Amino acid sequence: MSYNTFGHLFRVTTWGESHGPALGATVDGCPPGIPLTEDDIQPWLDRRKPGQSRHTTQRREADQVRILSGTFEGRTTGTPIQLMIENTDQRSKDYGEIATTFRPGHADITYHLKYGLRDYRGGGRSSARETAARVAAGGVARAVLASLVPDLTIRAYLTRIGQKTINTINFGEIDQNPLFCPDAKAAQEWERYLDEIRKSKDSVGAEIELTATGTPPGLGAPVYAKLDTDLAAAMMSINAVKGVEIGEGMAAARLKGSENADEIRMSQGGPIYNSNHAGGILGGISTGQPIVLRFAVKPTSSILTPRKTITETGKETEIITKGRHDPCVGIRAVPVAEAMAACVLLDHLLLDRGQTGGERGKIAP
Amino acid sequence: MSYNTFGHLFRVTTWGESHGPALGATVDGCPPGIPLTEDDIQPWLDRRKPGQSRHTTQRREADQVRILSGTFEGRTTGTPIQLMIENTDQRSKDYGEIATTFRPGHADITYHLKYGLRDYRGGGRSSARETAARVAAGGVARAVLASLVPDLTIRAYLTRIGQKTINTINFGEIDQNPLFCPDAKAAQEWERYLDEIRKSKDSVGAEIELTATGTPPGLGAPVYAKLDTDLAAAMMSINAVKGVEIGEGMAAARLKGSENADEIRMSQGGPIYNSNHAGGILGGISTGQPIVLRFAVKPTSSILTPRKTITETGKETEIITKGRHDPCVGIRAVPVAEAMAACVLLDHLLLDRGQTGGERGKIAP
Amino acid sequence: MSYNTFGHLFRVTTWGESHGPALGATVDGCPPGIPLTEDDIQPWLDRRKPGQSRHTTQRREADQVRILSGTFEGRTTGTPIQLMIENTDQRSKDYGEIATTFRPGHADITYHLKYGLRDYRGGGRSSARETAARVAAGGVARAVLASLVPDLTIRAYLTRIGQKTINTINFGEIDQNPLFCPDAKAAQEWERYLDEIRKSKDSVGAEIELTATGTPPGLGAPVYAKLDTDLAAAMMSINAVKGVEIGEGMAAARLKGSENADEIRMSQGGPIYNSNHAGGILGGISTGQPIVLRFAVKPTSSILTPRKTITETGKETEIITKGRHDPCVGIRAVPVAEAMAACVLLDHLLLDRGQTGGERGKIAP
Amino acid sequence: MSYNTFGHLFRVTTWGESHGPALGATVDGCPPGIPLTEDDIQPWLDRRKPGQSRHTTQRREADQVRILSGTFEGRTTGTPIQLMIENTDQRSKDYGEIATTFRPGHADITYHLKYGLRDYRGGGRSSARETAARVAAGGVARAVLASLVPDLTIRAYLTRIGQKTINTINFGEIDQNPLFCPDAKAAQEWERYLDEIRKSKDSVGAEIELTATGTPPGLGAPVYAKLDTDLAAAMMSINAVKGVEIGEGMAAARLKGSENADEIRMSQGGPIYNSNHAGGILGGISTGQPIVLRFAVKPTSSILTPRKTITETGKETEIITKGRHDPCVGIRAVPVAEAMAACVLLDHLLLDRGQTGGERGKIAP
Repeated sequence: MSYNTFGHLFRVTTWGESHGPALGATVDGCPPGIPLTEDDIQPWLDRRKPGQSRHTTQRREADQVRILSGTFEGRTTGTPIQLMIENTDQRSKDYGEIATTFRPGHADITYHLKYGLRDYRGGGRSSARETAARVAAGGVARAVLASLVPDLTIRAYLTRIGQKTINTINFGEIDQNPLFCPDAKAAQEWERYLDEIRKSKDSVGAEIELTATGTPPGLGAPVYAKLDTDLAAAMMSINAVKGVEIGEGMAAARLKGSENADEIRMSQGGPIYNSNHAGGILGGISTGQPIVLRFAVKPTSSILTPRKTITETGKETEIITKGRHDPCVGIRAVPVAEAMAACVLLDHLLLDRGQTGGERGKIAP
Repeated sequence: MSYNTFGHLFRVTTWGESHGPALGATVDGCPPGIPLTEDDIQPWLDRRKPGQSRHTTQRREADQVRILSGTFEGRTTGTPIQLMIENTDQRSKDYGEIATTFRPGHADITYHLKYGLRDYRGGGRSSARETAARVAAGGVARAVLASLVPDLTIRAYLTRIGQKTINTINFGEIDQNPLFCPDAKAAQEWERYLDEIRKSKDSVGAEIELTATGTPPGLGAPVYAKLDTDLAAAMMSINAVKGVEIGEGMAAARLKGSENADEIRMSQGGPIYNSNHAGGILGGISTGQPIVLRFAVKPTSSILTPRKTITETGKETEIITKGRHDPCVGIRAVPVAEAMAACVLLDHLLLDRGQTGGERGKIAP
Repeated sequence: MSYNTFGHLFRVTTWGESHGPALGATVDGCPPGIPLTEDDIQPWLDRRKPGQSRHTTQRREADQVRILSGTFEGRTTGTPIQLMIENTDQRSKDYGEIATTFRPGHADITYHLKYGLRDYRGGGRSSARETAARVAAGGVARAVLASLVPDLTIRAYLTRIGQKTINTINFGEIDQNPLFCPDAKAAQEWERYLDEIRKSKDSVGAEIELTATGTPPGLGAPVYAKLDTDLAAAMMSINAVKGVEIGEGMAAARLKGSENADEIRMSQGGPIYNSNHAGGILGGISTGQPIVLRFAVKPTSSILTPRKTITETGKETEIITKGRHDPCVGIRAVPVAEAMAACVLLDHLLLDRGQTGGERGKIAP
Repeated sequence: MSYNTFGHLFRVTTWGESHGPALGATVDGCPPGIPLTEDDIQPWLDRRKPGQSRHTTQRREADQVRILSGTFEGRTTGTPIQLMIENTDQRSKDYGEIATTFRPGHADITYHLKYGLRDYRGGGRSSARETAARVAAGGVARAVLASLVPDLTIRAYLTRIGQKTINTINFGEIDQNPLFCPDAKAAQEWERYLDEIRKSKDSVGAEIELTATGTPPGLGAPVYAKLDTDLAAAMMSINAVKGVEIGEGMAAARLKGSENADEIRMSQGGPIYNSNHAGGILGGISTGQPIVLRFAVKPTSSILTPRKTITETGKETEIITKGRHDPCVGIRAVPVAEAMAACVLLDHLLLDRGQTGGERGKIAP
């Protein structure tokens, strides 16, 4: 990872600000010969698009992606793929207050301190709009994974918003409600809860879980390019994320060794495990079990409740953040997490076949 | 990060296996002219050294570090610093069983699958011994930080082992007990608890918290070189870590926006905050508040309780992991976490002065 | 450097094909607060623009650059700068022959072998059009250098085309003729020579020299991030470049030690040298003398003279490359070389102040 | 490349100074399962070893390599390979003069300016001794290449020293004389010439050519990870190298397109070429023809002839560099160049199979 690039071999650099003319992703290192058009990417962007329900920001962006390079006659050429999304709904307005006042919980003050100036329009580079570029890049990764590892599925879903949790996980329900909630009954309750939160001029945090099934064993590396390290970094790099867990996660601190280590058995198809406390990763390398991770998204800091803050001239004041903000920014983190996971898994697939040729050690008589 | 290297400008590559002749760290990009001898590094290694109490592995390693390059007349020259630690207590023994049987919860099976072979002696590269090299590199980072940011302090400590937590945090207590516990009373209870765990042939997980005070504002970058991303990656790369949190961490999912965003006030010395839910980082960039993070270490998988597993020939069997294992590997993660944090903070300090020259935006009338 | 990215801290990723909708550069790591608009970049692109004389391709491209991100109110913000140049003169034509036949001296056959497919329109990614993106990125680097090192000047110029050389170097002449020739008299002769070459349906190679005066001492690093290494790589990465020299270059093989090493003297302003065989770099680090390098550009492979080749089906055939090709592609390499040098020098300036803080060792009583 | 690391996937970091206790290379990303012991590496070091003839420095170093990590039971494990060479012949002596006086043509003054201090003993990090570590790393690369591409051969040889050139290239002669000269008759003449140079208290430059046959097609990448870019950088990073050429090199500037482009024909085994002006690389990607490159090494700057210079206090003086110096440092660059080429070719082989899986586009009816 460098400033705005992530990935070792499948390298994604995102660019663009919330209220600039466009934003996008430069995807380098993509395998050649993979079928890819805008139609392969747009559906993922549509899932993340704001304004689809009353629970996300009412900003209306078409989020239409254009492929400017790297494909020819509908297939990737192995050269950089430029994905551009034009910003269309940049409401002309007076930014007076936020231009000079730091919104608590936002990057306003840290950008100001670090860079000496900032594009204050909609948060500039720190806006959640940046994640649209990640989702577009994830669409490319998905297209490649569909060719190389067709059995791989990546699903993310909310497991908590504020005080509300789920009772069951049903992958089929995730796309049946606007909250990416895998529990139909909980989803209804959550919608009411979110309405209340919004009416009370507040916002709420969320916990997202991601499950990747069909991940081949052997992805990752022992020490600093661990698969869990890269997945954790990828999730932590998403705006507003404050915690990341693999498998048992933070709860591993409470367990005993006899409870935590996954016993191994043998099946016709190879090793199987009696449990998956590890979340599919041992020693930084995938086992072949489902990869399971979770992360927490803090509540949107832009709320209609007045908050104490200061101005660029050091004057104490209060601020109410008007505008079209997500009452629960964690909802739209779901497609973003899937995109990041797709990029990381593909990257490690390429890294692995670079180093080992993709061959696996045998477990056999 | 690449396979065994981390850092952008202050780059650390660790090498070595548990039972090879030596292990170490190649530290590249160190600022020149910094006073540095083995005496600056050894104390940090001594803190991590095994065999110092009955609560850590009884393997006796001198863990004596040698600087083989990169210094001259007691100062860094700006060229690579090679830190070597010879392995001295590699008991000659029959590795028969673990040579061919995969220990549950260990990297044995994933190394075998990925590489087709593995150095099974003491876990080879996946051994916690690798972390000695990180601590040595951290010693270099500390020496540089002492020159460049003398007010910075980095303290880690256990906040939980298994079912036991703390009631108070007193930095002065951390080094007064063998468990790096900041609560003297809890420490006594924890020692009894650990004795029980060990007698029951089991092990237990731990939660570590790290606080860095005096961190300058402006370290980090907006998107993929976020300070929290790199800190999370650094901690997740430590053996057995399964979760990482910044500030409120996973609990942020439960909060409302009105509770979570830290209100800003003005003091004589600059901005101050009414709280620190953010853990000292906003939008990936340090605020100047203390950086607070936590991570969970899973219980040692090597226990004396029999566990089901398979052999390299696919035969189902049971295994008891004998040997000198930590009943709570999380204890020795404390100095490792401090070392990783020191490396990351220094790296971002260098990155920041590379890009911005180290100047800060003003908040003043 | 990775696939399509160069630079350590000032990182440039170019993207785009000759006949796609657009091409450009993603510039990451730019210092903040630098005045920058399209007007700072366009003049450099205009110098490289095709179709300005009868000696370069007659393709007519506006080469109009747009800044899509990374600036605010006319200054850089420290976030990625996206520079886009739309392709406007992509003549609709039948690519029948070159779609299936490999042009000798071109990347057609190697792209086909490596990727299994290629965008054959105008050479796709291997087209010299890619260098427009480099020039745009160089414009950003120039703007930053103008702020940080105002005394630095970077000039490139042709010292040879085919059998023709120069007798004198006069920087003032370089932009007075369409060949970037620093010798007014030679320039006239060269124009006639080029007319002959073109009429004979042939092309010719060129040698370019670049001089950077006012380079601060201390840029570079001892071993693999040597300033000369990175400059050499930057020049060699330009299309059609086959050789790179620093200072004496290949001629150093002919010299004796007593002739080659530059003797050092002392002046009021610091060390001075009796000569500059080193080309301004010793041990990979700049001395403060002018940096002098040269490189050779092979003759355009696209010529109207028939050449033997094969098709994708392995059939032997002959090919004449019609189209609008540069009779001497080396001419337009001049602004490209300047752009690359600007990027490399800025990158090393940032690297240096990251590691050392930019302070220099003293030479004084 | 970063400070002391080169390679994308096969990553080599060298460390150590001329007169420190040891030097070495940390090799990361090596494919697993490759047979490797010290015996595979030592012969290459022995070829480079000083003191083997009167034409190289009389310093007597055993240059005995030890593998400290990354192998198990004689095979690579995929984890970092630490190669250490202890310095044994560090004559204790008074460094008084060179400790405070800058040797012309050396990195003394640039290290002083950049870092503010330097290890002046034998040139410290800028010593040619650093290249022993490269040769050791090259030995690892060779062992991997022998497994993956058994037909690949890499040979370097001197084609010029000072005013003396060769008339013929006979690979069988290269190791039959102490000058790595491929022309037996020239070698005799060169030895006499070198004796004269040495007697006249001078030194001389050299030109080295390297030919790699059996290189698979498809290695490299279009823009900044071009195979020729990386080879040029690798050669330019070797001490004292001032110019690098691929194929026709600088002479390409003199050629016409009709002379330079290699015509393509079809053979039973695939495409063949009527010539190899390209040096085996088109558009940054290998064609499958022999890769041919050349580079120039400047004459050793350490000579017994007095040279004007200054001291650290800015006093003008003269210096004679006593000690055991190579009269033609280019001789020992031969095994270094081979090592660097081996590392680069392996690195690109791994990169290529990462991105493309190693499959090649077909040329067939």
